[in-house]
Amino acid sequence: MKTVPVLNLRSDFAIDADLAMQMAQIGKRARAAARQIGLASAQTKDIALRLIAERLRADRDVILAENARDVAAARSAGQTSALIDRLTLDEGRLAAIADAVQKIGALPDPVGRQIAAFERPNGLLIERIAVPLGVVGVIFESRPNVTADAGALCLKAGNAAILRAGSDSHRTAMAIARAMSAGLVAAGLPADAVQLVPTRDRAAVGAMLAGLDGCIDVIVPRGGRGLVERVQAEARVPVFAHLDGVCHVYVAAAADLDMARTVVLNSKMRRTGICGAAETLLVDRACAGTHLLPLVAALIEAGCAVRGDAAVQAADPRVTAATEADWRTEYLDAIIAARVVDGLDAAIDHIETYGSHHTDAIVTDDAAEATRFLAEVDSAIVAHNASTQFADGGEFGFGAEIGIATGRMHARGPVGVEQLTTFKYRVHGSGQTRP
Amino acid sequence: MKTVPVLNLRSDFAIDADLAMQMAQIGKRARAAARQIGLASAQTKDIALRLIAERLRADRDVILAENARDVAAARSAGQTSALIDRLTLDEGRLAAIADAVQKIGALPDPVGRQIAAFERPNGLLIERIAVPLGVVGVIFESRPNVTADAGALCLKAGNAAILRAGSDSHRTAMAIARAMSAGLVAAGLPADAVQLVPTRDRAAVGAMLAGLDGCIDVIVPRGGRGLVERVQAEARVPVFAHLDGVCHVYVAAAADLDMARTVVLNSKMRRTGICGAAETLLVDRACAGTHLLPLVAALIEAGCAVRGDAAVQAADPRVTAATEADWRTEYLDAIIAARVVDGLDAAIDHIETYGSHHTDAIVTDDAAEATRFLAEVDSAIVAHNASTQFADGGEFGFGAEIGIATGRMHARGPVGVEQLTTFKYRVHGSGQTRP
Repeated sequence: MKTVPVLNLRSDFAIDADLAMQMAQIGKRARAAARQIGLASAQTKDIALRLIAERLRADRDVILAENARDVAAARSAGQTSALIDRLTLDEGRLAAIADAVQKIGALPDPVGRQIAAFERPNGLLIERIAVPLGVVGVIFESRPNVTADAGALCLKAGNAAILRAGSDSHRTAMAIARAMSAGLVAAGLPADAVQLVPTRDRAAVGAMLAGLDGCIDVIVPRGGRGLVERVQAEARVPVFAHLDGVCHVYVAAAADLDMARTVVLNSKMRRTGICGAAETLLVDRACAGTHLLPLVAALIEAGCAVRGDAAVQAADPRVTAATEADWRTEYLDAIIAARVVDGLDAAIDHIETYGSHHTDAIVTDDAAEATRFLAEVDSAIVAHNASTQFADGGEFGFGAEIGIATGRMHARGPVGVEQLTTFKYRVHGSGQTRP
Repeated sequence: MKTVPVLNLRSDFAIDADLAMQMAQIGKRARAAARQIGLASAQTKDIALRLIAERLRADRDVILAENARDVAAARSAGQTSALIDRLTLDEGRLAAIADAVQKIGALPDPVGRQIAAFERPNGLLIERIAVPLGVVGVIFESRPNVTADAGALCLKAGNAAILRAGSDSHRTAMAIARAMSAGLVAAGLPADAVQLVPTRDRAAVGAMLAGLDGCIDVIVPRGGRGLVERVQAEARVPVFAHLDGVCHVYVAAAADLDMARTVVLNSKMRRTGICGAAETLLVDRACAGTHLLPLVAALIEAGCAVRGDAAVQAADPRVTAATEADWRTEYLDAIIAARVVDGLDAAIDHIETYGSHHTDAIVTDDAAEATRFLAEVDSAIVAHNASTQFADGGEFGFGAEIGIATGRMHARGPVGVEQLTTFKYRVHGSGQTRP
């Protein structure tokens, strides 16, 4: 664990020798399992995922009993009702978890895809082939479904997974992880391909962020801003994550008003708590006279509070004043910041200045304007005449996602099984040597 | 520079406030330039690279004069003749640098490529499009050509570059960077798209490794093991690099002896100092009787020292004993470690245990055995019946490379202009909202 002391210089996760040893063993077992799972056939992995789904259904009573203990502990610890709701499983939710695992099994195998192939003048045939990432560390909070979802996505992509559940959901996660290991073994795959860190000790997170001495290839944090921020600050390995989803909808002068209203309302209000929800509405000054009031009124009548600049406040007395901070805020709530801007360049400047490079949309009937917006807004997802709430692996046709990434490296946007792979070059020769 | 204090907890690059300010300004200028260069047309970028090449030729006398001062300083500082040779430019070498820049301009534009496209049942058309990485930081040592090569590759991929030259080559690098900025301006592009850090202060490296407060997206170290090790240990941003090139050639029982001899000799002896040079020879015990002595003798007669296990020593008295350390050593010299192994599985185990996941080759006429080797050896490049020295962007047809990466994320193997891009999703709708 040579990297841990380095990490602990600025870590709030002190780690003792025993735990360091235990975590190192988890890493070594994951690396060994990754080599086997990475070479498993598509069929074997799919059988494993089907057997895992069956086991999750068969173990229903055990899992729900463990979950009840987690929920009771959370209640007596005085946790929020929101957390307790996220934590709570019932037969329906558990059945949905099992179905999701089976659905992931049915996806096309991302491993072994030929991404590119080229023949060289000397006769060498060079192929670029998708291969698993290796060992994926997933650090999550109270949602028990992440254990199964994340584990299944990693397996489908041929990766071993090291899962670290929040202490609130620890018993539930352990029960689910046991079911997954049982399914793996029944399919002839190593139980260690999915390991749940068996301790609640937060120092285990520090050890994972340090990479378990080279045994973790990438970390995926699943949880609130605090978790993601800490992971991004301390991780010594690559991280797939997004910190904020400050998503914008820009309504241009050439926008059809009805389409703009529909797209804005859906982007903001379909679900206000997801990262793809719009947080800022930008309206072109050239159409403010016709479009601004109807859009603002529709939002307010749908139950959304609107915080606007002077022009937006002038349009509707129910609009309160927006401060500089509002342009940077991810409300995750029925609140939107609204601003009138001087055309496309001002809209792009606003988004590049205040946005989080997650998902931004333009509504316009002007194709040239749309093309410029899609080219110049530097976000993982840019949309024309569509809701920002399509920012989702399922909606993209990926089947499922382990999260959405706003970093620039490797995985951007929804991270599905394809983004949980990397590649290697296979060179086929007939004795060629380099001159 | 909020990240610098964090970094300096374990950095050997203390940074003072003035330099921190200066580096922060370089970062901000690079980020602004990246937005312009990222949107420049293929034609504009190609014109810029042609004008840069012309300027490098026109400024020949200035550049060679500055280089002469660097060389004189290195001499009086008692630098090694190897370093002085790497540092020295003459008319031929400078002409080759200019030609390389022009050749990079002639490559296909990697930006704007449609990597994937899919239409969803709701009519959304989703495209995955290649876009520039943003700002690339390149930290190199004494080779002056890296200034032009790395700068040109970054520009071609639409990135801004922040270059930090080793102090030995600082004057030469400054003269080359001035020529590049002049070429950019002549093409109507921002001079700041290629910036050379104007100070020799090593603290500038620490500031770059901290990411210049989010203004550097990836770091590429170009130099010796010491540099790469420090960069990988301290960088707070992604790094494209390889630490070692412990490359293997495995000669299987089904190998044609003449082909094996040719491939082994070329893999080891064509050039011993490059990362793709073979460092370890593995021979299947099943063909040791027929193949081992001819291979070892050919190597020794070509001037290569052979360090072997007992079986290899028994085959030829000129073989010295290999120690455990030899299996992990990148000699970069006319030395090879040689071992007899019990077939394919043992060969793969050896490579996975001691290798560096760079480039490994098998020589065999057994297609099934080759397929297993290419699948199970977890290296960036795996080759069948071909020399390991093909590990090169030019040999892969990439036109040029900024380096070779052995990490698993984003760029693996030779890093050409394509790997200096990332992607974004463009969603084209007609008013779709998410149910």
